[in-house]
Amino acid sequence: MSENNAPSAEKVVPVTEQPPAEGEKGPSKSALKKAAKEKEKAEKAAKRKAAEEAQKKEQESNDVSKEDYGDLGVLGQGSKLPSKDQVPRVSLAQLEKWFQDTSKAEEEGGPQVVISSLVVENARNQSAKLSFLTFSDSNYSIQAVVAASETVSRQMVKFSGSVPTESIVQVHAVVKKPNEPVNSTSIKNLELHIKKIYVVSRAISQLPVQVADARRAVPSEDAPAEQEASQGERPLVSLNTRLDNRVIDLRAEQNQAILDIKDGVVRLFQEFLWARGFKLAQTPKMLGAATEGGASVFELGYFGQKAFLAQSPQFYKQMLVSARRKRVMEVGPVFRAENSNTARHLTEFTGLDMEMAFEEDYHEVISLLEELMLHIFDGLKTQYKTETDLVRTVYNVPEFKLPEAGKVPRIPFWEAVAMLREAGVEIGDYDDFSTPQEKRLGQLVLEKYGTDFYVVDKYPLEVRPFYTMPSAETLASYDPANPNKGYTNSYDFFMRGQEIMSGAQRIHNAEYLEQRMKEHPSHANPKEEGFKDYIDAFRYGCPPHAGGGLGLERIVMLWLGLPNIRLATTFPRDPGRVRP
Amino acid sequence: MSENNAPSAEKVVPVTEQPPAEGEKGPSKSALKKAAKEKEKAEKAAKRKAAEEAQKKEQESNDVSKEDYGDLGVLGQGSKLPSKDQVPRVSLAQLEKWFQDTSKAEEEGGPQVVISSLVVENARNQSAKLSFLTFSDSNYSIQAVVAASETVSRQMVKFSGSVPTESIVQVHAVVKKPNEPVNSTSIKNLELHIKKIYVVSRAISQLPVQVADARRAVPSEDAPAEQEASQGERPLVSLNTRLDNRVIDLRAEQNQAILDIKDGVVRLFQEFLWARGFKLAQTPKMLGAATEGGASVFELGYFGQKAFLAQSPQFYKQMLVSARRKRVMEVGPVFRAENSNTARHLTEFTGLDMEMAFEEDYHEVISLLEELMLHIFDGLKTQYKTETDLVRTVYNVPEFKLPEAGKVPRIPFWEAVAMLREAGVEIGDYDDFSTPQEKRLGQLVLEKYGTDFYVVDKYPLEVRPFYTMPSAETLASYDPANPNKGYTNSYDFFMRGQEIMSGAQRIHNAEYLEQRMKEHPSHANPKEEGFKDYIDAFRYGCPPHAGGGLGLERIVMLWLGLPNIRLATTFPRDPGRVRP
Repeated sequence: MSENNAPSAEKVVPVTEQPPAEGEKGPSKSALKKAAKEKEKAEKAAKRKAAEEAQKKEQESNDVSKEDYGDLGVLGQGSKLPSKDQVPRVSLAQLEKWFQDTSKAEEEGGPQVVISSLVVENARNQSAKLSFLTFSDSNYSIQAVVAASETVSRQMVKFSGSVPTESIVQVHAVVKKPNEPVNSTSIKNLELHIKKIYVVSRAISQLPVQVADARRAVPSEDAPAEQEASQGERPLVSLNTRLDNRVIDLRAEQNQAILDIKDGVVRLFQEFLWARGFKLAQTPKMLGAATEGGASVFELGYFGQKAFLAQSPQFYKQMLVSARRKRVMEVGPVFRAENSNTARHLTEFTGLDMEMAFEEDYHEVISLLEELMLHIFDGLKTQYKTETDLVRTVYNVPEFKLPEAGKVPRIPFWEAVAMLREAGVEIGDYDDFSTPQEKRLGQLVLEKYGTDFYVVDKYPLEVRPFYTMPSAETLASYDPANPNKGYTNSYDFFMRGQEIMSGAQRIHNAEYLEQRMKEHPSHANPKEEGFKDYIDAFRYGCPPHAGGGLGLERIVMLWLGLPNIRLATTFPRDPGRVRP
Repeated sequence: MSENNAPSAEKVVPVTEQPPAEGEKGPSKSALKKAAKEKEKAEKAAKRKAAEEAQKKEQESNDVSKEDYGDLGVLGQGSKLPSKDQVPRVSLAQLEKWFQDTSKAEEEGGPQVVISSLVVENARNQSAKLSFLTFSDSNYSIQAVVAASETVSRQMVKFSGSVPTESIVQVHAVVKKPNEPVNSTSIKNLELHIKKIYVVSRAISQLPVQVADARRAVPSEDAPAEQEASQGERPLVSLNTRLDNRVIDLRAEQNQAILDIKDGVVRLFQEFLWARGFKLAQTPKMLGAATEGGASVFELGYFGQKAFLAQSPQFYKQMLVSARRKRVMEVGPVFRAENSNTARHLTEFTGLDMEMAFEEDYHEVISLLEELMLHIFDGLKTQYKTETDLVRTVYNVPEFKLPEAGKVPRIPFWEAVAMLREAGVEIGDYDDFSTPQEKRLGQLVLEKYGTDFYVVDKYPLEVRPFYTMPSAETLASYDPANPNKGYTNSYDFFMRGQEIMSGAQRIHNAEYLEQRMKEHPSHANPKEEGFKDYIDAFRYGCPPHAGGGLGLERIVMLWLGLPNIRLATTFPRDPGRVRP
């Protein structure tokens, strides 16, 4: 054990026990007898422990490498590693390049390195004189050898081969070429010959889930039977168990890749919009009133009053446009209290929102949003190819097909209806699509246009919220007896037949907005307190504007073809899950 | 009035009234009499209206420019502007450059432009033949002239001079050099001579707050009397009234600049950390248990159960580090149910959080955070100079002083205590600083080191949360009888004597974490359900790590020296405010 000023947790004196509370009875005879027995037992145990420790001490005094291995204390410091001047610090990612550059200069035996933060993937005692370990760091892994020698004791060999999987270690090692390439690691032509090894953080030996289990695909809801039938394998760990132990589950390489891609989508979203004059906004998530249907909104206590969690930043984005912020974007949580237990619903997800004043027509906004999505897809294809391919080795899904020459099909609603009818689907002129109809439409669009990404434009008035701007034609043919007939300046964006964004031109005229609230099937009451600030924003002069909200997790799920949105969520929330 | 297919809101037939419910009594005699009177009145009004409309029609038929002005309909389209091929679209920002480039080619009378989305800053009828308007767009403004002529009617002149302030208009105009430079606008050497003008969005004439009022400074809480005493001015509109009408308040140029700076801080934060391998995370905001003190946490209903709003993403950032995400950052809302009604507290603010595994010492993390802040300050100084200067013309605050040669003072806690004592402040060795003490320390550091930005390191064990890693010295001299004595590996970052970030090395050893929970003055119970996932994360092998959380609004407030954090918040939330 290395010397370490910091006490390890086990050595720390426990908090003293409470004395019996006043008024309690004294102990009975049988209790006294029992206590005497326990005392005897404790004394025996103490003797045994003392003997063990004495033996251990003797062993240690005979241990030539006792300073060269062991568990570090609470602080994770105190190892006897050589200084940076003596031995360079090299990460696993840099190791191969570093070896090429330095090995020529320093031939005898091989160059030495110190590597920190290595994960123990595997450790085994081959014999009393030889242990093998596999270390990893991000996507790199390497084999390590601990061989008994004049400077490496058998105790150290035994210790090394027994470090639990998933522990974190620091090593000082000689880097050598192995006799044969190592097949099981990413670094195949180098090996670490350990001189010192310290456990920085010791994992428990019985993990609730194995990372190996987390590396396997979660079966699709559509085809669970097929996937579970694969023979000879260990039974799949359920998604629920994996999510219960998400800290381990996320360690699987494809899950790391999914999180990297998520980070990438946000970066690509922001960089595209920043370059076009958009500014990030942070709109409030706690609202004084539930403005978008009370059933699907979370209610919270707010200093003796009620408040509600924002289901969308839309009203605030619009108010910012009225506040002379012509182009706003937001990346933030969105809360939906819908009791939907499906593979594509969450109660909390990440919204990528934008809203903008346009000059002459809302199609300016659709065009910009199409370009935005193509920018994201292009970035994923070029900058996240490794990550995408890695996930595809686990989830065997067809590649995401992009439109040729960047021409995104923009299909008017009535044309989408006609396509579905032609394919034998029954649907009314003004009916919203059901989920199966949307998926069917996705197949039809893929067949006709060869793309998994497309836009449906001009949704019917009665299936869109009250604030949606009717189309010019609908406004021109307004019939007060049938005020919800016709189409709107609104649009949905789709990936693989699933909606990733809903957007629209919004009504920017306060009086007309009030009228639409009353006319709309939802019969929203413009007098309701929650609407006042929103409607007022349009009394103060507000340019025509449109926007939309993308679901980050949806984009990632559908880009990769994942079978469940939870796999694209760091710590998912659904009606049955609020932890971890 | 321009022709427009879309009906304007006023013309729309209202929803028909309900017939009396069954079983109701018939009307009484006096009611009948009253009804007859009302009928007569309505008939008279209808006659008067018809006469007015006839007169208006006649006037319109005599109006040579009746197609060239008016209010657009609900859609904001339908103006009779020349096409893009005929007359170029130019924004106010581009106008001066564009004029230089084109005016030579097109001499006679001056070049023509179409400009959309102009805000009417001011409009007045100079005479029956002449109106003046001031238009603005972002930080640009220009004077416009509407003069009666063969093609411009007196009706159009009158209409133009009466457009309410803050309305949005589209114009077709000839650009000319004025006889004398215009002093009141940002574009002084050009003037618009209007050919067509359409109101896209008409503001109400009585705004609840004037933008002119919003352009004035909000007085500091420390010195309200002094500032209110300025003579001859209109009384200041209270901050509360301004926040009630935040959509108008935000239109003031210094508020636009504040929001631009906020956007900039987020961009600078992310770009610095992305370049160093950090990845954005989205951690959940709805938690199954309140882990950080029940009193200051918001509680919500969650499908028949309770859930809580996250007070910090810290536990989840740490769990992500354990999940092999070595460097994570997050930009997201943070919720604090503290009943603090001060100029520097909010119940919802934007956290800029980071957490990272380090190699050998937590000072690696402090160094990176110091560099991060210097990167942000440098970006603000160079890229946001205009915005910073603009805000400083309103809030007369000394410039923010940066440390010389990038050397940030990193003051050990005991040294800060000594500095305060030397200045006559009474404080115990292990007492946390009070707000006045922090401010005093800020003055002392400014005097000694010449900087408004500095770090205090190694806070006492008893004033930091249970998960804070004790210092090596404290661990070495552990005394079970006095387990909360000593210092920690924790730090606060300060701007102008106010804390902008709290951070620390965290305990990454599960057993020791449980011990600290019991020992700590807060007596957190490790058996409590909310802690299980957190503690377990450290049983699976987790590298030593540290991090911190910055308050976005605090940084902006203190960079600019604003007197109130609400001024740096888009739509602020405090115990008394959840709207707009």
